[in-house]
Amino acid sequence: MASSNPRNTLPLTRASVSAARALIQPHIHDTPVLTNTTLTNLASTPQSADALKGTQWEGKEAAKPKFRLFFKCENFQRIGAFKVRGAFHATMRLIEQEGLEEVQRKGVVTHSSGNHAQALALAARTFSIPAHIVMPSISTPSKISGTRAQNATLHFSGSTSAEREAVVADVIKDTGATLIPPYDHPNIILGQGTMALEIQEQVEKLLEANKGKLDAVIAPCGGGGMLSGIAVGLKDTGIRVFGAEPSFQGADDARRGVQAGSRIESVKTLTIADGLRTPLGHHNWGIVSDPAFVQGLYAVTEQNIKDAMMLVLERMKCFVEPSAVVGLATVLYNEDFRNMVQREAGDEGWNVGVVFSGGNTTIEAITKIFAGVADEKAERQEGVLGRDGTRMAENVAG
Amino acid sequence: MASSNPRNTLPLTRASVSAARALIQPHIHDTPVLTNTTLTNLASTPQSADALKGTQWEGKEAAKPKFRLFFKCENFQRIGAFKVRGAFHATMRLIEQEGLEEVQRKGVVTHSSGNHAQALALAARTFSIPAHIVMPSISTPSKISGTRAQNATLHFSGSTSAEREAVVADVIKDTGATLIPPYDHPNIILGQGTMALEIQEQVEKLLEANKGKLDAVIAPCGGGGMLSGIAVGLKDTGIRVFGAEPSFQGADDARRGVQAGSRIESVKTLTIADGLRTPLGHHNWGIVSDPAFVQGLYAVTEQNIKDAMMLVLERMKCFVEPSAVVGLATVLYNEDFRNMVQREAGDEGWNVGVVFSGGNTTIEAITKIFAGVADEKAERQEGVLGRDGTRMAENVAG
Repeated sequence: MASSNPRNTLPLTRASVSAARALIQPHIHDTPVLTNTTLTNLASTPQSADALKGTQWEGKEAAKPKFRLFFKCENFQRIGAFKVRGAFHATMRLIEQEGLEEVQRKGVVTHSSGNHAQALALAARTFSIPAHIVMPSISTPSKISGTRAQNATLHFSGSTSAEREAVVADVIKDTGATLIPPYDHPNIILGQGTMALEIQEQVEKLLEANKGKLDAVIAPCGGGGMLSGIAVGLKDTGIRVFGAEPSFQGADDARRGVQAGSRIESVKTLTIADGLRTPLGHHNWGIVSDPAFVQGLYAVTEQNIKDAMMLVLERMKCFVEPSAVVGLATVLYNEDFRNMVQREAGDEGWNVGVVFSGGNTTIEAITKIFAGVADEKAERQEGVLGRDGTRMAENVAG
Repeated sequence: MASSNPRNTLPLTRASVSAARALIQPHIHDTPVLTNTTLTNLASTPQSADALKGTQWEGKEAAKPKFRLFFKCENFQRIGAFKVRGAFHATMRLIEQEGLEEVQRKGVVTHSSGNHAQALALAARTFSIPAHIVMPSISTPSKISGTRAQNATLHFSGSTSAEREAVVADVIKDTGATLIPPYDHPNIILGQGTMALEIQEQVEKLLEANKGKLDAVIAPCGGGGMLSGIAVGLKDTGIRVFGAEPSFQGADDARRGVQAGSRIESVKTLTIADGLRTPLGHHNWGIVSDPAFVQGLYAVTEQNIKDAMMLVLERMKCFVEPSAVVGLATVLYNEDFRNMVQREAGDEGWNVGVVFSGGNTTIEAITKIFAGVADEKAERQEGVLGRDGTRMAENVAG
């Protein structure tokens, strides 16, 4: 994906993330950090031998990590996802560089059909800037009408990225609009990173009484805008940063790329975590592949994602999209991650910030994801109860 | 329903609700109050002529009320519903009256299969008191295992209330256990009322800057424990209290009873708002039918409940059970309520606290409720968008 004009961008440092935060704060929500006793207990209970059957950890002793989980609820963010952070930051920096009138004259453009399109449309509307959104003509009616409702101008294209980029090029030629890409841009990365400063402050406030600290953050990784932003925001704080991906059809391109030592540039996956189907961007790769920024990448199965999603909906009473729970799924089900935490955190355990990236799904989509689940559910629930020991959903707002 | 032994109960006053709050506070969550721009805007937009077609308001001019809505999220309460407030209060008052050892020797009993059973089991477990829960043998496996997980002793009965009460009588004869009914008891009412003091404080804090006040609270009404408790808690504060019920198969027994001047003692309804299928209790009737306490009762259709539930899930990203949204459905769709607010609140509008009573449903149940909805959804969504003007979910934690 071609990145737009990143001249005069700030360096990728915690100080730049702080500056981004000051800039965008009037326009975004400080989303709450929630805790949940049931999920913390579940994460701190070893998986059963049965649960490991059929996985790569079958027959091995289950890890015994200790966690206290803190959920950063970006599903409660404006437009229902973290994407407004980067969209506002990139738009406001563009205004600083070129002047409001010039940006209003030329407009902005992007070719996402998802949360970034709505986020950019909202940011543009806030400053009376024309927004051009290129989306495939086969997009769902709700996405089309949702973006229209933000007063954005829609341009339809074919479904391939070449077709979409051709339409973007036409829009730029016609209008002079500036491309604001969904993740592969320093200003997007710095914007998304602002949530890391909030998580750190919020968790430390919750742990004030016993002087606890945040030990780690785990976040979903698609194009890597959010993960690299968080890693930049927490650099040199001692707080570890981990990324989580779906493994389905090779969607764990970041993990595989880091292992192989080079970025994987193309991914074709239909994982239910539809926000994570994209490969890591250029700028994002630079951060995510650097162990000084990101200390590990882990992958989970589609079933892990469904199981985590059901827990968040039914126990925690939070409405989340599948992409949002990939970090929690890693904490609950990935034995490599769990063994690492047991080893590193010891008996003390870790205070871990788990990012819920967004909540933009529908009852219709959830019905499809869980079709057929009803039948097996009674049994599965007994299993969860056996491990969990309680059905209580205990939540505290932070 | 026979009420247990209400000797030495406190008078039904705001001061008693305050005392209840001090007593139970260590054991319950101060649940958050959330706001949502989309829902506030939607409530403040007149319904379309189309939306009124086929209703009793067809052809009439749509009301133009102004609202600022504040959602009290008891779905984030322990066990996922407000019921722990009353259960802890009744249990702790029983301990005060009879001494902990005596209550531990005799135990407590109830015959609810829903949220109250889990709430009582949790309260009992907290004080090492045996809890006996009588439930129909046909109850769903998840309810049975959920109650078992709280260490309660289950007693199975037939499905009619006579059969259940016979088993309760047996348990009392065998063990000396004290019946803690789900709603028809002053200590339950005072316990549930504690949420009213929280709502008032939380909303006034949110409105501090412009010295705003809470004008009204609307809450679902089944047996009436919560509604009467809120009304007692807010008596003489100038804050109006309204009740909301489903109309399906006569589930609006409180509204109809107040209209007719006498309590309706039996209701047989299969409304999807399954927490609201019970008729008003004796003590509850005394409060709910008194206009000095409750200023109005309104009813909504099953479709209204589904529509409100979809908005809360998809836009507000909160996981709620159908019973929880009956108050919001009234605000959005009941023209009698909306006309009243337009008349009373004028151009200023009202700050209204809307109680979400609980979130104990499952993906399986939601799938059933919305089966078939997928097909009509695209069109309906356009309608909502037309009225709403935006698809953004804007939430602020309070």
